[in-house]
Amino acid sequence: MNSALSTASATALTTLREGTPLVQVITNRVVTGFTANVLLALGAAGAMVDIPVEAGPFARHASGLLVNLGTPGSEQRHAMLEATEAAADAGTPWVLDPVAIGSAPVRTPLAHTLVARRPTIVRGNASEILALARSGSGGRGVDSTDDVEAAAGAAEAIARDHGSVVAVSGPIDLITDGSRTARIDNGSALLTRVTGGGCALGAVMAAFAAVADPFEAAVAATATYCIASEDAAARAEGPGSFAVHFLDELSRIQPADVLARAAIA
Amino acid sequence: MNSALSTASATALTTLREGTPLVQVITNRVVTGFTANVLLALGAAGAMVDIPVEAGPFARHASGLLVNLGTPGSEQRHAMLEATEAAADAGTPWVLDPVAIGSAPVRTPLAHTLVARRPTIVRGNASEILALARSGSGGRGVDSTDDVEAAAGAAEAIARDHGSVVAVSGPIDLITDGSRTARIDNGSALLTRVTGGGCALGAVMAAFAAVADPFEAAVAATATYCIASEDAAARAEGPGSFAVHFLDELSRIQPADVLARAAIA
Amino acid sequence: MNSALSTASATALTTLREGTPLVQVITNRVVTGFTANVLLALGAAGAMVDIPVEAGPFARHASGLLVNLGTPGSEQRHAMLEATEAAADAGTPWVLDPVAIGSAPVRTPLAHTLVARRPTIVRGNASEILALARSGSGGRGVDSTDDVEAAAGAAEAIARDHGSVVAVSGPIDLITDGSRTARIDNGSALLTRVTGGGCALGAVMAAFAAVADPFEAAVAATATYCIASEDAAARAEGPGSFAVHFLDELSRIQPADVLARAAIA
Repeated sequence: MNSALSTASATALTTLREGTPLVQVITNRVVTGFTANVLLALGAAGAMVDIPVEAGPFARHASGLLVNLGTPGSEQRHAMLEATEAAADAGTPWVLDPVAIGSAPVRTPLAHTLVARRPTIVRGNASEILALARSGSGGRGVDSTDDVEAAAGAAEAIARDHGSVVAVSGPIDLITDGSRTARIDNGSALLTRVTGGGCALGAVMAAFAAVADPFEAAVAATATYCIASEDAAARAEGPGSFAVHFLDELSRIQPADVLARAAIA
Repeated sequence: MNSALSTASATALTTLREGTPLVQVITNRVVTGFTANVLLALGAAGAMVDIPVEAGPFARHASGLLVNLGTPGSEQRHAMLEATEAAADAGTPWVLDPVAIGSAPVRTPLAHTLVARRPTIVRGNASEILALARSGSGGRGVDSTDDVEAAAGAAEAIARDHGSVVAVSGPIDLITDGSRTARIDNGSALLTRVTGGGCALGAVMAAFAAVADPFEAAVAATATYCIASEDAAARAEGPGSFAVHFLDELSRIQPADVLARAAIA
Repeated sequence: MNSALSTASATALTTLREGTPLVQVITNRVVTGFTANVLLALGAAGAMVDIPVEAGPFARHASGLLVNLGTPGSEQRHAMLEATEAAADAGTPWVLDPVAIGSAPVRTPLAHTLVARRPTIVRGNASEILALARSGSGGRGVDSTDDVEAAAGAAEAIARDHGSVVAVSGPIDLITDGSRTARIDNGSALLTRVTGGGCALGAVMAAFAAVADPFEAAVAATATYCIASEDAAARAEGPGSFAVHFLDELSRIQPADVLARAAIA
């Protein structure tokens, strides 16, 4: 276990709750409500400002920004470009989630454009990270068809090329900044049975990136999120009740829980 | 306590359930599902008809209309203009919720255009009401940075200028028609931890406005909604279970509960 | 009871869970999250690929496709045309759900265009099926104002004209391919108190159509879905907890339950 990262994660959670970071959420239509509820439960706040003309100015003052490519309609694509330009200019930390890229003809080139803008954090499953590094052909819909460890090299390459922290989701999450790499062995498989289980983690990373350095933010977000999912799973009778308990547990989890239970290697 | 308004609220709930008003919901992408479920649980029904060409004709025959500015994409803005024009022409009661206006460059002028069309009810938090009266600069995302009472004058001014009832949400809700003002001291703070807690109340006001005069409708909606939230909070273990119990309680709450427990001053 | 169809339904559920079909979901903004969660709970997966340029290629490789007309914005309408053309060309089974057609001026002609492309399954309430057969004027918002049996002739006509299986939802569901007709007497009325209770069934039909012939797929989807709703209703305290239990029960229901309890005539 890495006690320095566990301590940093616990501290980041404390700081997050003191500051209630406001995350600009530009995400897909399937997970909007769940994502906003995850942020609120944790102690942050979300605002879905995803139309042109408004997205840019908002990104200048938001605590963090999530850009998720799940349902990238035309107006939202313009808003993504506007918001990421403003975020880069203003120093707002931002997270790119290249959902289901690979062969998809609109979102795949958009993801390559966006990653070149040097996101603070890139979050995806193994197939998405491989596709973003141009070394894979993508997954199956939103599901990965590759193992996390198979994407380790691609993650490190993206991290080095773009100065981003890259987080690869899976049974054991991998997070790298190109030199340091952490692996986090927390979380319940029920997260994969709830729509937005991965997408909402991207928003949580944006919230933590407002209060911690990018590598620690990605680690703290993953550890906090996954430990809460373990408590929810222990009480769940299926994916429906799991999602309800998960929001409850996100509101309950304490920095001491993160410190004691984060399985970071 | 104001027993006349409590009685009117209880009566309105009875009438609502007998008539199952159909509310046209033009709202933001984050809260669509929750809003529709709130209406169904209460005993009304929602239909999200928010595209141009369809929005206007539908507004002529709907029982009520909600126009919520949370994610005002281009097509939806056209639909809002179409629907409010038709609603005004046909006498359909409608509610304006000027979400997060203030400095936002698209929705702020749109809100001013819409309020000039004399909505039946305007609902917002204190920052939004202050911004709509042009005496404030808006809040922080969807959260108010102003107290309800600080917006009392702005609410009365909007009410007088546009013939609207204005409802300001907060720990104690304020509702005014420019001459009468009611304050409602019901509700759980957990409503602020659920996405759409405020937005869905706008839809409920539109449902009540179909069966009661605007001032009584805003009061009845707020009292019913907030009392149900108290019962949900008593059973909740966090924001996730609160939202579930809240829908259950909206389906259970009886006119007698409203009569006995509405704290209207 | 029809034991052949019960057996086929149980077998289809087994096959579905072995294959985890990937359903392309082009649906309305109100029910996206619930629909995706229903698919995941059942053992399938959903991907909301509903933008032009991406919708067509995706439909060629998806296991099934749902086209639901609930909130048909301009981009989504183009995506629907693209996806259904590709699905027809590639042999991908697809489901048309003509939500709230009748007098609605955009979606009604769109539904007639789409039904002429010979959907694998058409699913709707009685008013929608009557309107699609041009023998009715539509319902009230998303609610039917006609009885299921009143739409039996219209359902058979659509089935014969377009080679589709037609499923009419109601207290007793009717499913016909123009020669055979099944009636299914399962399900809880609480499904009508949850937004997306009908819409998500369309997605489930698309999942089953990936693993069974269209008539059996529509029957199996309806029986499985409705039996799970009965178990959820038995544990529910209202529409909020019903929706949660329903997802849990969809993940739990076994082929043996379908075999034993399907009330198919």
